[in-house]
Amino acid sequence: MKELISISKAIEILSFIYVDMLGKERISIFKAKDRVLAQDIVAHIDVPGFDRSAMDGYAIKAEDTFGSSDKRPSSFKLKGDSDDESAPCRIGHGDAIKVHTGSVVPKGANAVVRFEDAVEVGGSIKVFKTIIPGKNISYKGEDIKCGNIILRSGRILRSQHIGMIASLGYGSIEVYRRPVVAVFATGDDLVEVGSLPTEGKTLNSNIPMIYGSLKELGCKVIYLGIAENKEEGILAKLNLAIEKADAVITIGGMSVGNKDIVPQVIGGTGKILFHGVRIRPGKLCGAAVVGKRPVLMLPGYPVAALLTFKKFFPVILSRMMGNSEYPGKEINFFVRPKTKISTREDSTYLVKVNVYKYLAEPVNIYSDVMLSSMVNVNAILEIPEEINEVTPEDMIECTYLG
Amino acid sequence: MKELISISKAIEILSFIYVDMLGKERISIFKAKDRVLAQDIVAHIDVPGFDRSAMDGYAIKAEDTFGSSDKRPSSFKLKGDSDDESAPCRIGHGDAIKVHTGSVVPKGANAVVRFEDAVEVGGSIKVFKTIIPGKNISYKGEDIKCGNIILRSGRILRSQHIGMIASLGYGSIEVYRRPVVAVFATGDDLVEVGSLPTEGKTLNSNIPMIYGSLKELGCKVIYLGIAENKEEGILAKLNLAIEKADAVITIGGMSVGNKDIVPQVIGGTGKILFHGVRIRPGKLCGAAVVGKRPVLMLPGYPVAALLTFKKFFPVILSRMMGNSEYPGKEINFFVRPKTKISTREDSTYLVKVNVYKYLAEPVNIYSDVMLSSMVNVNAILEIPEEINEVTPEDMIECTYLG
Repeated sequence: MKELISISKAIEILSFIYVDMLGKERISIFKAKDRVLAQDIVAHIDVPGFDRSAMDGYAIKAEDTFGSSDKRPSSFKLKGDSDDESAPCRIGHGDAIKVHTGSVVPKGANAVVRFEDAVEVGGSIKVFKTIIPGKNISYKGEDIKCGNIILRSGRILRSQHIGMIASLGYGSIEVYRRPVVAVFATGDDLVEVGSLPTEGKTLNSNIPMIYGSLKELGCKVIYLGIAENKEEGILAKLNLAIEKADAVITIGGMSVGNKDIVPQVIGGTGKILFHGVRIRPGKLCGAAVVGKRPVLMLPGYPVAALLTFKKFFPVILSRMMGNSEYPGKEINFFVRPKTKISTREDSTYLVKVNVYKYLAEPVNIYSDVMLSSMVNVNAILEIPEEINEVTPEDMIECTYLG
Repeated sequence: MKELISISKAIEILSFIYVDMLGKERISIFKAKDRVLAQDIVAHIDVPGFDRSAMDGYAIKAEDTFGSSDKRPSSFKLKGDSDDESAPCRIGHGDAIKVHTGSVVPKGANAVVRFEDAVEVGGSIKVFKTIIPGKNISYKGEDIKCGNIILRSGRILRSQHIGMIASLGYGSIEVYRRPVVAVFATGDDLVEVGSLPTEGKTLNSNIPMIYGSLKELGCKVIYLGIAENKEEGILAKLNLAIEKADAVITIGGMSVGNKDIVPQVIGGTGKILFHGVRIRPGKLCGAAVVGKRPVLMLPGYPVAALLTFKKFFPVILSRMMGNSEYPGKEINFFVRPKTKISTREDSTYLVKVNVYKYLAEPVNIYSDVMLSSMVNVNAILEIPEEINEVTPEDMIECTYLG
């Protein structure tokens, strides 16, 4: 292991690695949730596309109401209902046409009086107050102007964006293809999950954990099993991974013990970007590029594996999609520690916390090994390496886990 | 429309509706991410399953190091490597056995000295400081005790939980079945997305938006199209929805205009729980139960539809899964408004904001109609109805939009 680097240096390195970019594909807007946009979205229409009533009411000329009061209402002749084909499509002074939310406002009208603010008697209506021009009308192009770029390539598409894109007439859009990620574990003591372990053996529980996390990020996952902990075993899995996938994740075999040879084997065939980050837990993680494929090497301890995965893998995916947004980049989420937390200045500490309201209670702060501590953890507090104590007075950045 | 109710009353009502519960199914732990647990998870093993070395180093009796110093190191005879079958499985005073992270600690040993804290010379090692008994050993059952309930039914399974469950030997688990949700829209002016709208027509953009949001909540979605805006048209879709799905969402047709008849039609065949909530936007939303199926009635405006969906639909799903956790119930997320925001005391205001660091900047606060405002919105600030002004001094609850 070479010199440890800072977490920000690690992220910087991953943000600029030279790897193959993901291709693009066209998908239905119905399947676009959480995908990453690979085109700019241009408005080809005005929204609204016509002067639209924002309320149920009567379309009128606003100036006809000027000076109206309870005692001196203004009066209008009701010329029809916009829903009827026979209704006039233009009004003059003293005219009113019944309109509905979303209706086209008749030409000549410049305001809509709500039903509640008018009284209909026979063929006419009375209005008891001054209505301001433009009232209850959404003008053509007021919301979105034709020709404007509304969203740029690289945005993660959330529900609100999908509604907007669909409103612009798009039925399908270009997004980055789902990344295919190959995963394998190393460790002679590992046995696959689904049975009770025998003495000296450890269940390979990292795999379903990372598998689910990858799925959440929209990846297709190829699980290659447990590599035999020898150069040939690791190389065989690595070569298969490089051949089949866009990115590779290895789990385990990262410590400085004489049997932990993953970085050495990967370094022999590709380029190690870093091995060792000033981060706790997760100090032993690393990254490499092999054949223009990014390789993230996670430590074997579950808590360390999960936290370093969450910290670094989205950066790699972002890089493969033209440095797009990624989860954690788009929003910061701050909380107060419930108690004082002391750390050493040698590392960025990722502290497991349970956040309730805006208070973060540390959970088993100094144990990275305890799996049970993860039951009630719902977020990770990040204490930068230049800080060695945080208190309930501080607002600290947090990554939400769930 | 009857009397408007408060948002908390609406949530209370939905938390206790009498509807069919979702069934359960057994799935692989690999597919468990974000599913809702429908069984308690009991530990059938101790974790660790044996006294386990937490470091690479030498297993010794700690008391043999008491009083050791740089000048007076303690000395041990190296009896083997735990990886070799021939290594003794028990040590005595003055003995050391090389162990690796995750190895079984030999009987008789009660501490592990890290490689870095010892010097190996020939067949013996020297230790230069006092090692505390228990150092670098994870004892059998220290993390999780056999027989304990680790997670209870109703928890949403996040990555950290999956790692833990897999470590306990579970290969599959019982979760609530994915809910099937039928959705239809009403509105004679609606046309389906994927083409440019003609004058007077509105693209049915709510559907892909809500479709994606439902998928995110783990639902299977049946889209039934646009209902003809007559009693028969709405009833036909509703009956189909009730027959095919566990829950129903209608969009549009909720206002008090004479053509908005969705609540009236649904009330004619089932029971309206509420129609009208003191919430802005979204005042016109409603809920009903028809044939033991919950029906959420969303207003037609996209922003109002999305926000009321996010607020109420997870509560309904939770109810159908035995009042399980649901997104938004598990974690609260607080921010400060960037500017003063004034609201009326008549409603809970859902204010669209852009959160950066812990500051929330309101976006088009008083327009519910503007779709463009959703581009930069990443969260919703909730200002309770009894409060009519919030300032940058306040911490306000926020819902992250994803």
